[in-house]
Amino acid sequence: MSMERVFNFGAGPAVLPEIVLEEIRHDLIALPEVGMSILEVSHRSKVFGEIIETAVRNIRTLAGISNDYHILFLSGGATQQFAMVPLNLLSKDYSADYILTGAWSKKAVQEAKRIGAVHIAGSTESDKFSRIPHLEELTLKSDAAYVHMTSNNTIYGTQWTDIPEVGKTPLVVDASSDIFSRPVDISRHSLIYAGAQKNLGPAGVTLVIIRDDLINCAPASSSALPAMFRYKTHIENGSLYNTPPVFSIYVMGLVMKWLLKQGGLDAMNQFNVQKSKKLYAAIDCTDFYQGTADVHSRSLMNVTFRLPTEELEVRFIKEAEASGLIGLTGHRSVGGLRASIYNAFPEAGVEALVQFMAEFERIHG
Amino acid sequence: MSMERVFNFGAGPAVLPEIVLEEIRHDLIALPEVGMSILEVSHRSKVFGEIIETAVRNIRTLAGISNDYHILFLSGGATQQFAMVPLNLLSKDYSADYILTGAWSKKAVQEAKRIGAVHIAGSTESDKFSRIPHLEELTLKSDAAYVHMTSNNTIYGTQWTDIPEVGKTPLVVDASSDIFSRPVDISRHSLIYAGAQKNLGPAGVTLVIIRDDLINCAPASSSALPAMFRYKTHIENGSLYNTPPVFSIYVMGLVMKWLLKQGGLDAMNQFNVQKSKKLYAAIDCTDFYQGTADVHSRSLMNVTFRLPTEELEVRFIKEAEASGLIGLTGHRSVGGLRASIYNAFPEAGVEALVQFMAEFERIHG
Repeated sequence: MSMERVFNFGAGPAVLPEIVLEEIRHDLIALPEVGMSILEVSHRSKVFGEIIETAVRNIRTLAGISNDYHILFLSGGATQQFAMVPLNLLSKDYSADYILTGAWSKKAVQEAKRIGAVHIAGSTESDKFSRIPHLEELTLKSDAAYVHMTSNNTIYGTQWTDIPEVGKTPLVVDASSDIFSRPVDISRHSLIYAGAQKNLGPAGVTLVIIRDDLINCAPASSSALPAMFRYKTHIENGSLYNTPPVFSIYVMGLVMKWLLKQGGLDAMNQFNVQKSKKLYAAIDCTDFYQGTADVHSRSLMNVTFRLPTEELEVRFIKEAEASGLIGLTGHRSVGGLRASIYNAFPEAGVEALVQFMAEFERIHG
Repeated sequence: MSMERVFNFGAGPAVLPEIVLEEIRHDLIALPEVGMSILEVSHRSKVFGEIIETAVRNIRTLAGISNDYHILFLSGGATQQFAMVPLNLLSKDYSADYILTGAWSKKAVQEAKRIGAVHIAGSTESDKFSRIPHLEELTLKSDAAYVHMTSNNTIYGTQWTDIPEVGKTPLVVDASSDIFSRPVDISRHSLIYAGAQKNLGPAGVTLVIIRDDLINCAPASSSALPAMFRYKTHIENGSLYNTPPVFSIYVMGLVMKWLLKQGGLDAMNQFNVQKSKKLYAAIDCTDFYQGTADVHSRSLMNVTFRLPTEELEVRFIKEAEASGLIGLTGHRSVGGLRASIYNAFPEAGVEALVQFMAEFERIHG
């Protein structure tokens, strides 16, 4: 890590591997043997064709994704998916199951309700979203159009340890904040979507993995649905129906290569477990710091905690910043502190934070 | 221009000012005094707040845009706007006027028809879109929800010299391929949209300029319209309702600074007139090259022409590429040749093409 870089604990857009940044910089003025910047190449050029095909291939390799699934690069982030999922899979005579585990699940519900009926098949809102529901708390309907869930909750620092068993109902997962942070059994999902800006790349592109049998649902075939909002349109055009976010896809491709080089998702999981263990240990070894998430629901990606007073929290954040530890402010809706430690977040940053925490407690504890 | 760069005549994504690329590269690993890459900063950070505010301010200055208009940075390109415009401004009991001047206008019509009625208020399709309609050919309806037009047609190489007078009906313009290439009287428009990848920046962000009185149209207030697809949502949140394409907005901001430094839109117009004149002169001074657009409808941005045979066209494109003149293939739907010479395209590239054309004719003519 070069001298002038800080440790970026931001929840997203988030830190990228420095080696990826170096590669982007190296080729920024002109891609090798192309003579123009990746910011200038046509999305229909040979060079970009190879970039997008390689990205798709590497994503398949990384997560073991069979050809039953399509891999799409869309735009508008998870927020646009909150609408596209029900627009393609739900209609006013049907109902979808949504499991509420935080603010993002709630936003997804808001959008689904515009299109059809929503059954809340589980919620931990009464516990202020401090935990993931137990499987026996879920009230899944056998005739639901799909089940929607959020795999990791950035604001509350909670994460599903595994996806629930939902029978034959298609499972739709918003995995924006933990995708490719650990192995994933794709075959248990019907649709996974993720804004890139946490574990995959820069803001501006959304990864969608969708099983082929989902694309011909009746709502998706309605002539009233704009072409841009149909998964089928993008599948038929290999994500090139319109000009895609070329640069963001390029960077995501570089991050996929980096993930493979790190050893893939098993290695990432080990690395993420190791980092989060160190941080949770620092929280648990004292009463000065209090984790906000239920111990069994703790996220490996977003570690949320509080200090004895809000004054101390403000001071902690300010002094941490002065020490090059940036982005530790909790989400404005809940306050407190949050350390986001996605795939690309270096272990040295966790160690620096743990050391800072000990020092801060020594002085103010 | 550094040795290894080619001349990029691509229709979009297109060439960017090399000085902008240099600035991106310079700060790519860490923005000055920030310690992280623009690819990693939060969209809610102070540094990005300043970037987006400066971009908005510079856009207002460049085009003389009053506070009656909102300036938005969205995603999904013009294609998404083909849907968002009718979703916000049209409903099934109303009709909108569309002027057909090419393939993109037709795509816009397709999407509008999903939402409401469309009246074709003018079309040059019977002339294979080789010209812009005369004002007296237009059959505008006084009760139209809006009039939609495409200011420049990349595929056919035609461009409106001025927007038509449409009375009190709101005028909606897809200006994707000529925005900010010349002065624009914003007050005559109600909504202008443009994918960035021709005159504004890299692919991945869409500029929308919308007059305040348009945002409360009844269709835009329907509870069935997803929040992401309402202009109002993005206005109320200063383009930060969801995580925006941070990097693409940053680059567009740099291009806006570059435009101001070049002398603004008047200077750009002079520069673009000068470049296109040279190229059209090279076409007109011989029968070997034939311009495809009507002389009075010629585009300053996309110069389309043909050679005596398709074999010669293939050869021309191949040999031009070998000489570092890239992207001259016409759109696959019409064939022939196309030289796109947007704002950032250097005059030296036009001169190199003119010289190549003379040389090619000398050998093959």
